[in-house]
Amino acid sequence: MAKNTFGSSITVTLFGESHGAQIGAVLDGLAPGIPVDEGSIAEKLMLRRPAGAISTGRVEPDRFQIVSGVYEGRTTGTPVCIVIPNENTRSRDYSVTRFLARPGHADYTANCKYHGFEDHRGGGHFSGRITAALVAAGAVALSALEGKGILIGTHIKRCAGVADREFGDLNADIRALSESSFAVLDPEAGERMRAAIGAAAAEGDSVGGVLETAVTGLPAGVGEPWFDSLESVLSHALFSIPAVKGVEFGDGFAMSDMRGSAANDSFTVRDGKIVTRTNHNGGINGGISNGMPLIIRCAVKPTPSIYKEQDTVDFSAGTDAKLVIKGRHDPAIVHRARIVADSVCALVLCDLMAQRFGTDYLAP
Amino acid sequence: MAKNTFGSSITVTLFGESHGAQIGAVLDGLAPGIPVDEGSIAEKLMLRRPAGAISTGRVEPDRFQIVSGVYEGRTTGTPVCIVIPNENTRSRDYSVTRFLARPGHADYTANCKYHGFEDHRGGGHFSGRITAALVAAGAVALSALEGKGILIGTHIKRCAGVADREFGDLNADIRALSESSFAVLDPEAGERMRAAIGAAAAEGDSVGGVLETAVTGLPAGVGEPWFDSLESVLSHALFSIPAVKGVEFGDGFAMSDMRGSAANDSFTVRDGKIVTRTNHNGGINGGISNGMPLIIRCAVKPTPSIYKEQDTVDFSAGTDAKLVIKGRHDPAIVHRARIVADSVCALVLCDLMAQRFGTDYLAP
Amino acid sequence: MAKNTFGSSITVTLFGESHGAQIGAVLDGLAPGIPVDEGSIAEKLMLRRPAGAISTGRVEPDRFQIVSGVYEGRTTGTPVCIVIPNENTRSRDYSVTRFLARPGHADYTANCKYHGFEDHRGGGHFSGRITAALVAAGAVALSALEGKGILIGTHIKRCAGVADREFGDLNADIRALSESSFAVLDPEAGERMRAAIGAAAAEGDSVGGVLETAVTGLPAGVGEPWFDSLESVLSHALFSIPAVKGVEFGDGFAMSDMRGSAANDSFTVRDGKIVTRTNHNGGINGGISNGMPLIIRCAVKPTPSIYKEQDTVDFSAGTDAKLVIKGRHDPAIVHRARIVADSVCALVLCDLMAQRFGTDYLAP
Amino acid sequence: MAKNTFGSSITVTLFGESHGAQIGAVLDGLAPGIPVDEGSIAEKLMLRRPAGAISTGRVEPDRFQIVSGVYEGRTTGTPVCIVIPNENTRSRDYSVTRFLARPGHADYTANCKYHGFEDHRGGGHFSGRITAALVAAGAVALSALEGKGILIGTHIKRCAGVADREFGDLNADIRALSESSFAVLDPEAGERMRAAIGAAAAEGDSVGGVLETAVTGLPAGVGEPWFDSLESVLSHALFSIPAVKGVEFGDGFAMSDMRGSAANDSFTVRDGKIVTRTNHNGGINGGISNGMPLIIRCAVKPTPSIYKEQDTVDFSAGTDAKLVIKGRHDPAIVHRARIVADSVCALVLCDLMAQRFGTDYLAP
Repeated sequence: MAKNTFGSSITVTLFGESHGAQIGAVLDGLAPGIPVDEGSIAEKLMLRRPAGAISTGRVEPDRFQIVSGVYEGRTTGTPVCIVIPNENTRSRDYSVTRFLARPGHADYTANCKYHGFEDHRGGGHFSGRITAALVAAGAVALSALEGKGILIGTHIKRCAGVADREFGDLNADIRALSESSFAVLDPEAGERMRAAIGAAAAEGDSVGGVLETAVTGLPAGVGEPWFDSLESVLSHALFSIPAVKGVEFGDGFAMSDMRGSAANDSFTVRDGKIVTRTNHNGGINGGISNGMPLIIRCAVKPTPSIYKEQDTVDFSAGTDAKLVIKGRHDPAIVHRARIVADSVCALVLCDLMAQRFGTDYLAP
Repeated sequence: MAKNTFGSSITVTLFGESHGAQIGAVLDGLAPGIPVDEGSIAEKLMLRRPAGAISTGRVEPDRFQIVSGVYEGRTTGTPVCIVIPNENTRSRDYSVTRFLARPGHADYTANCKYHGFEDHRGGGHFSGRITAALVAAGAVALSALEGKGILIGTHIKRCAGVADREFGDLNADIRALSESSFAVLDPEAGERMRAAIGAAAAEGDSVGGVLETAVTGLPAGVGEPWFDSLESVLSHALFSIPAVKGVEFGDGFAMSDMRGSAANDSFTVRDGKIVTRTNHNGGINGGISNGMPLIIRCAVKPTPSIYKEQDTVDFSAGTDAKLVIKGRHDPAIVHRARIVADSVCALVLCDLMAQRFGTDYLAP
Repeated sequence: MAKNTFGSSITVTLFGESHGAQIGAVLDGLAPGIPVDEGSIAEKLMLRRPAGAISTGRVEPDRFQIVSGVYEGRTTGTPVCIVIPNENTRSRDYSVTRFLARPGHADYTANCKYHGFEDHRGGGHFSGRITAALVAAGAVALSALEGKGILIGTHIKRCAGVADREFGDLNADIRALSESSFAVLDPEAGERMRAAIGAAAAEGDSVGGVLETAVTGLPAGVGEPWFDSLESVLSHALFSIPAVKGVEFGDGFAMSDMRGSAANDSFTVRDGKIVTRTNHNGGINGGISNGMPLIIRCAVKPTPSIYKEQDTVDFSAGTDAKLVIKGRHDPAIVHRARIVADSVCALVLCDLMAQRFGTDYLAP
Repeated sequence: MAKNTFGSSITVTLFGESHGAQIGAVLDGLAPGIPVDEGSIAEKLMLRRPAGAISTGRVEPDRFQIVSGVYEGRTTGTPVCIVIPNENTRSRDYSVTRFLARPGHADYTANCKYHGFEDHRGGGHFSGRITAALVAAGAVALSALEGKGILIGTHIKRCAGVADREFGDLNADIRALSESSFAVLDPEAGERMRAAIGAAAAEGDSVGGVLETAVTGLPAGVGEPWFDSLESVLSHALFSIPAVKGVEFGDGFAMSDMRGSAANDSFTVRDGKIVTRTNHNGGINGGISNGMPLIIRCAVKPTPSIYKEQDTVDFSAGTDAKLVIKGRHDPAIVHRARIVADSVCALVLCDLMAQRFGTDYLAP
């Protein structure tokens, strides 16, 4: 586990920059024989793609190519490399502001770490663009898990001050979300979110939100205490998603205000199976899955790219400066990030299952 | 990185069970020549030790022994193993309830994973008792960081509905906290917290809280995108602490309701150094430190061990059951967990600094 | 470290199959600012490319493309992905013998592991073809090390019963080897080797050999006992090269017949620097470099692809069978593998230096 | 995987110094329910213990204690920590020669790496003494493998110029070796070896040898190309054993002089099972086990501690010096290292099997 590679038994390695030739992912360790459907990958990429007034004007066709690891439509068991060319880049948007640190972005910290050699165009390696590769790899993982009866879905729980309804029948909700380009359970809440995003955009501003992910069908007994607890590994990967600043499980921060008698999920036997009556712990006790659905929430900060003039520094000159960001940006990314959250959770769970049950486990 | 070992350049390995012979930690990869002060380790262990009416009756002397890796008072550069014997165990408290899953605890999930071979006494390997070893190792890490001008401190931001004051002068606050056995910045808030804990205890119940950690002096440029972002690695380790159900950085979940213009931390030059005017991002941009203080919050759920009768199952018989927990338990652990949070952050930062600047970096 | 990714601070990830669309490597963790010369990569690939009568008829142009991690001719510090398309494939050569295990090859073991889903064409992921990606990544590593005064060179110490001369002036020998397409120190020995290879080829047979690698300029103090000893990490990577069946350091197996008084390298001070008078230990004591040149030897078995009829099994039918291998194969690979050995050593040493001295160490 | 921790699913972490308080090992990731027999651990430690005229006068009782991870005689599935106190130390033997680098030892390189803070007494962390902890952990691994029908045994193939007979009936040979304190297959060869060791000792000198390990019962399909090939991972661990300078598999270096037609192991069907007629490849094709016995050889250099006067340097003063080693040393370690080789192979194979077949695989 290091830098741009994540996982133990099943690993994903990311590469690429916003304005470089290609971005991509290498997905290694998957069981052989898993069907790989290019149409399904394309669908997931479509869910990530910007759309309409509430998204950036840069629309990439995401013409991905699987260059290894798949033979006759199935995984071979050796590394799957998926590359996606960058096609719609306008690097000149960035040359004027080369040394002006965009507040909230990685420009300044990248410079501290890479000493000016970083590819700064469009955020370079730090760009949300790279999540397209994560989604392509995640699509394979999601479909492998589905083959084992494990479903993952994410909705926009809150955005720009508008709340979606609570999760209800999880499997039905997850299936509905998988076909929704703006992932809300309550369409009317979705309308109000889009309006609020549009209003912020009209002022040259941006908004954030909270993503809530549910996982059903995960068997009990997955997770490796102490340091590879289910929460540990999931949060590690989720905090890799740009703009995520908080992660919580079950009732999360709200549990800190509860009493034990309210927060404990009491067990009972239902249809011969041990379950809990409530799920405040989000399906995890002691870092190990308990057979109940996982509930995970990510706080997504507002897109740092805004059109309002901002105070900043020229980190080359070491002087204060004013910045007006040009280029094409999203007033919100929460609706695009939901499929990234799904993907990341799928990759982590595939890895943990393969560690727990062996490298052939995910084979059909 | 696997199971009970964490880290890349500097690793910590935990072992032990609540009622076993010894618990301990192996701390590997530390630079040679770092002074190791047994008194300072004892002090940190004292901060973790239960005290008085708001803590468990099981008080362990924590007579630790450094059995390797320290020679003539300094680290040798090879593994430091610290062992702590368990002395005050009352295993009979657990025999009656062997197969009754304590709600909120790892009893049932451990059984799913370890098939009944787990040492169940007192929670076994899942017990908060093991954090004593983490604190002993963390004490060495904290002192190594202090030698490089990096300070870490945690206060109880909220407990049982009572809020502490905000962080002010961070270095002063951290120094004050290091000498406080109940880590609040506002002593009066501390009084009210203790009263609230006591009230819950009197009802056989328990409470949770929020820990807030500040780190000062960390240089800019530390963190390894994508997957070893500073948030990723810190959250990975923090979610290993029992009862932590949420982790956030900077304004965390509150950022999801902000607009970009409010959430972005604008840069400026102050005394020749690039800083941000605000610190909503908690010292991290793009997964890399920006030179501002790190701000980290952990949600700690209420102690699952309560004295009220609870519904549960006998997972051996597969039947519903009633459980009344005996034994000695904490009505809150947030005041004991603060030094665990400090320790975990210190271990992670030592590791990331050694990766970034080399294995000799922390040498004096 | 897992499957197709190797390294801790600097990692290389391999992907691709002999007859798939592309092979490639992701090289992550390199310091920013290292010059990347495509001409130098092309040169190294040329040294690996089959040539003339003693090599396979499949000649690939190796038109590599750097798709990420290099900007304006220098490393950015983020992952360098190099892809190489497969262009000259003749997959039909393999269809008839799909289930006939080629003796000495991975056909049968791949089938045991991947259950028939492996891409079997031309050895698939097990093909020596994939070493082209390793060489491309290694070329960047070799040039980074050269920038720090560290030189690596490999000669064919023995092939088909013919011995090359011993290493003499190492730096001069290494420079000579870097320009030699058939890596021997004694051209006359090279002539005899080629003749012997040709003789074996004429009989439809193949030969093996021993590669000897020297590394000069490595500082003392590199290597991480116990488990990441210099020998451990180098051998781990070298045994990944197909056909390598033995690895030794210094006098290696010959030391087992020596007495301590003969095998010990006595120290002396020369020009103010501590050196050893002899180098039986190959520059490594206790798993750590001692400042003397590293000496490493790899035993390369004869190419398993021979044209003689062989006894084997049809592992689909579970019956004995006769096999006559068609396709295009090398009667020896030792002369092509020398640059692979250089590459692997360079990648390992870059990684160990970055771990030891920090991620910026290799920057110019 | 870093420094003193090895493995992915099952890891071993070593700690301790020759003259420190305790040495030990943490063995993590073992399946729950594996019987742990302290008698069997004691037996393996006995095989490592020096004995009689051909060994050091320092005899440690090796009173090990299992302090965690075993409950009611079986593994719990959580970390097993075994500590062994050092009891028979004579540190004063080392004070005079503090800065005189013993040729062939790690004194000088440790100083380069640890800057003088290393515990130098008796070789400190580099001492062969630490292998006692490896053997204790290995004993548990050996017995877990035996439970799955996998046997491991090592004989002294050559020592001081005397050769043992070849392996014959492997399972019978392995069982015989397990009860032999001087691991030869031909007792008469053993007599001559001991005489030759004694002769060298009488001259104040030392000898080396070659260890040959056989593994039977390993299923086909274990090993993870490219970088975690069976040879890669085994050699990584074997080169961690002090004094090992070469590792080869099957016919190893001898294969480099063979032709393909002789080196290829042809397949056949015997009793319905696919086997090879010969085993030049030592049970491994393409880095994956093929179901035949593994054959592994390690070159062990002569013990560097000899009583003859040697030329060396005082690395504190930077001057040439003469050294006469005092203390108690082995004139050969090959007979003690055989159980270390067994242990290391067992730990690696347990890990690879757990990765391949899941964390429960080794459970009885």
